[in-house]
Amino acid sequence: MAALEELLAFQRTTEALGQVMGRLGWDQETMMPEGAAGQRAEEMGAMEQILHARRTDPRVGDWLARAEPRTAAEAAQLREIARLHDRAVKVPADLAEALARLTSVSQGIWAKARAADDVGAFLPTLQQVVDLRREEAAAIADGGDPYDALMQDYEPGTTAAEIAALFDRMRPRLVALRDRLAGVAMPPALSGRFGREAQLALTTEIARRFGYSLEHGRIDLAVHPFSSGSGTDVRITTRIDEGAPLGCLYSTIHEVGHAAYEQNIVPELHLTAIGSGVSMGVHESQSRIYENQLARSPAFTAFLHGRMTEHLGPLGVGPQDFARTINRVETGHIRTEADEVHYNLHVMMRFDLERQLFGGQLEVADLEAAWNARFLADFGMAVDRPANGLLQDVHWSVGLFGYFPTYALGNVYAGCLHAALRRDLPDLDGCLATGDVAPALDWLCERLQRHGGLRSPRATIEYATGSAISEAPLLDYLDAKYGALFGI
Amino acid sequence: MAALEELLAFQRTTEALGQVMGRLGWDQETMMPEGAAGQRAEEMGAMEQILHARRTDPRVGDWLARAEPRTAAEAAQLREIARLHDRAVKVPADLAEALARLTSVSQGIWAKARAADDVGAFLPTLQQVVDLRREEAAAIADGGDPYDALMQDYEPGTTAAEIAALFDRMRPRLVALRDRLAGVAMPPALSGRFGREAQLALTTEIARRFGYSLEHGRIDLAVHPFSSGSGTDVRITTRIDEGAPLGCLYSTIHEVGHAAYEQNIVPELHLTAIGSGVSMGVHESQSRIYENQLARSPAFTAFLHGRMTEHLGPLGVGPQDFARTINRVETGHIRTEADEVHYNLHVMMRFDLERQLFGGQLEVADLEAAWNARFLADFGMAVDRPANGLLQDVHWSVGLFGYFPTYALGNVYAGCLHAALRRDLPDLDGCLATGDVAPALDWLCERLQRHGGLRSPRATIEYATGSAISEAPLLDYLDAKYGALFGI
Repeated sequence: MAALEELLAFQRTTEALGQVMGRLGWDQETMMPEGAAGQRAEEMGAMEQILHARRTDPRVGDWLARAEPRTAAEAAQLREIARLHDRAVKVPADLAEALARLTSVSQGIWAKARAADDVGAFLPTLQQVVDLRREEAAAIADGGDPYDALMQDYEPGTTAAEIAALFDRMRPRLVALRDRLAGVAMPPALSGRFGREAQLALTTEIARRFGYSLEHGRIDLAVHPFSSGSGTDVRITTRIDEGAPLGCLYSTIHEVGHAAYEQNIVPELHLTAIGSGVSMGVHESQSRIYENQLARSPAFTAFLHGRMTEHLGPLGVGPQDFARTINRVETGHIRTEADEVHYNLHVMMRFDLERQLFGGQLEVADLEAAWNARFLADFGMAVDRPANGLLQDVHWSVGLFGYFPTYALGNVYAGCLHAALRRDLPDLDGCLATGDVAPALDWLCERLQRHGGLRSPRATIEYATGSAISEAPLLDYLDAKYGALFGI
Repeated sequence: MAALEELLAFQRTTEALGQVMGRLGWDQETMMPEGAAGQRAEEMGAMEQILHARRTDPRVGDWLARAEPRTAAEAAQLREIARLHDRAVKVPADLAEALARLTSVSQGIWAKARAADDVGAFLPTLQQVVDLRREEAAAIADGGDPYDALMQDYEPGTTAAEIAALFDRMRPRLVALRDRLAGVAMPPALSGRFGREAQLALTTEIARRFGYSLEHGRIDLAVHPFSSGSGTDVRITTRIDEGAPLGCLYSTIHEVGHAAYEQNIVPELHLTAIGSGVSMGVHESQSRIYENQLARSPAFTAFLHGRMTEHLGPLGVGPQDFARTINRVETGHIRTEADEVHYNLHVMMRFDLERQLFGGQLEVADLEAAWNARFLADFGMAVDRPANGLLQDVHWSVGLFGYFPTYALGNVYAGCLHAALRRDLPDLDGCLATGDVAPALDWLCERLQRHGGLRSPRATIEYATGSAISEAPLLDYLDAKYGALFGI
């Protein structure tokens, strides 16, 4: 067999094993009996050992040196395999194992600390995580910037300097919009009791409307909503709060954006190195455009009002006012609950703290004070307790440093995609007002989703939109949407 | 590290990967979206490739040659690792993978054929399965009997000649009992509609009573009831028929027998080569003694009547007559629905057909005719449709040849265990009559379950009972039980 065929067959098995690993993670969050956690950690450790051995297998380097791609898709696969191989061989096996071992228990320690509002119970673990990730970052950076090196895991090709410049351009307009909205009286949130079965039926109907295939997926309950898997088995989770039905619904639409991206990748790419979403930022662009630009648009919320009323009963607000209820703006502590205006400001402060942490200007011991000071400065309110501050996000507990900026990048990408979508579908609002999201989904599928990792993250967005990436469409959209909604 | 430590650490990872494989099988039957079957086949093929590579790893042979066990448990582990290694190295990797791939899709083909009562739609697949298993059997038999070789996967140390002799001894007494019962008027089966939720609540309560730990397991619905997993994650499934509540209840008690065996193995043996039930026959002895000798005993059914009435409402039969309802004897087509008198006769005919198939006296093309002729001869009734004949069992579709005899062996073992249990617990019926199964479960746990694969299958039973294995206790028990119940 030629080197190319051998390499691609080897990679296919690796990808299949990667899917198995993802399925274990899904099971852990949805189905696993409580008493099985220790055994599951061993099972995942065993899988990680196998996957690491395959990524660092010397034959991969050899095949890569000899393989000659025949198509653009094969060339892209070789680039991606090479990228992952190069990264893996730079990390000593004992460091990789130490990180895997630590991060399999550190999330539980964080969860307990958060529940107890006890930063001190988490900091020693966080210190260990940061120490190991600093060591890993130094190994993979090869003399370059360690934080840049970490970012490559989530958004290949992006640098912290680019992100910093992007955020510097975004911040003034976001702050100005936020400040204009501060004087506006907001409508109350939805209140009442909304049954679990009814919420789940509504959410499932809307998930299908947004293209989620239950033939290739399923919806379960979990503590945190997530999407899991690629190819023909892409599962999502949701959670239900009987007092707040928008949480279940919109978190599901968000996860459907992630899942539809995976489900819509052409079958020829399944179980290849480019058979999943190309980066966290591009992934987030899909979840955010589904959730925000489409499902939170005034045109769609007027339609949604009817579906919600049918499933849940009277909402206490009319269809034309519903967009303001759904898009109400409020300063709050929690990133995942933030409106579109505040959301990126949460990301920006995490990005700056992470850069300082990996640039040597900030230590773990000082992180809480730095967080609280920065939050007060940026949001004009104090952190009232650690669960609303440093302990709110799971990411750092499992070593996800360099990940947060991809959330804001996803919003920027979504802004670009949305502008191009409106250019190509002038009557988008007419469709959305009747609940017809299919034209928008088809556009996203054809332009972006079906191609998986064929192009780099940046090229993926630029191919889809036909334009260079810019923050301007997102900021223009936010100004226009909130200006019209709240008369500012 | 010494050879022993290296080998045991290596094996631990292999066992963890084996558990992952089991979890994929569970997921496939309970949770997997329908459209994911093809991808799942690749995932399981990839896992099988890894597992096969580990079982055949030359280092295992080297470690085995140098390892010196310090305890009986370590010696047993080395024996089991050697047995699996020897078997695995005899099977070419491409054959192992071809079998894994085929059997991951062949079950679906069988299920469709059975639903359509279409033998022709299944035979080409069955032919492929038989061809590959014949090839495998020849490879592992090393010149010996191929069917004997297959049986080692399920009941190490047993030969087809032994089984044939056992069945020859059992058949006359079973047939005589069956014929005596043929003239007895049987009570009607339970009839009515019994809600799904109520059945599941009853079943879960009884499963817990029989020692099933939901902290280390869960109960889900599936097309066929099964138990899956070892150590701290042992899951069972059940199915509910609203018109026949005994099916859900007794199939669950059966699976609880399997699962409790796994759950009760001492933690020190978890994720070792002897950390699971030692053989299918011994496993079946646990499921059958839970289901039959305990849960179908007249003492327990009198207690059960009260619990069923509380959950399901009036049953139309009193507590003292309930044992006859539960133990009614009726000739039928389906093995899994057979009473204790007929059950082993079903197994015997499958065993004979399998031996002919692997001995070269029978071909797949002639299997249906052979089945139907044999069924008519043994049961005095014709097969009315393939779903009630050749297509009724899943086993052959996934290559499980040599497995059926372990069901009858399990019954024989259960007979031995039951006789010893009654010897040691003279007031067993007094306990069962109050629903107190704990003394019996404790006896089984201490004598048998907790030791996992420490001893050979035969030695496991003989250690537990203190006697040689014999079919006599089972046949005596059946004569006595049915004689007393139906006055023959």
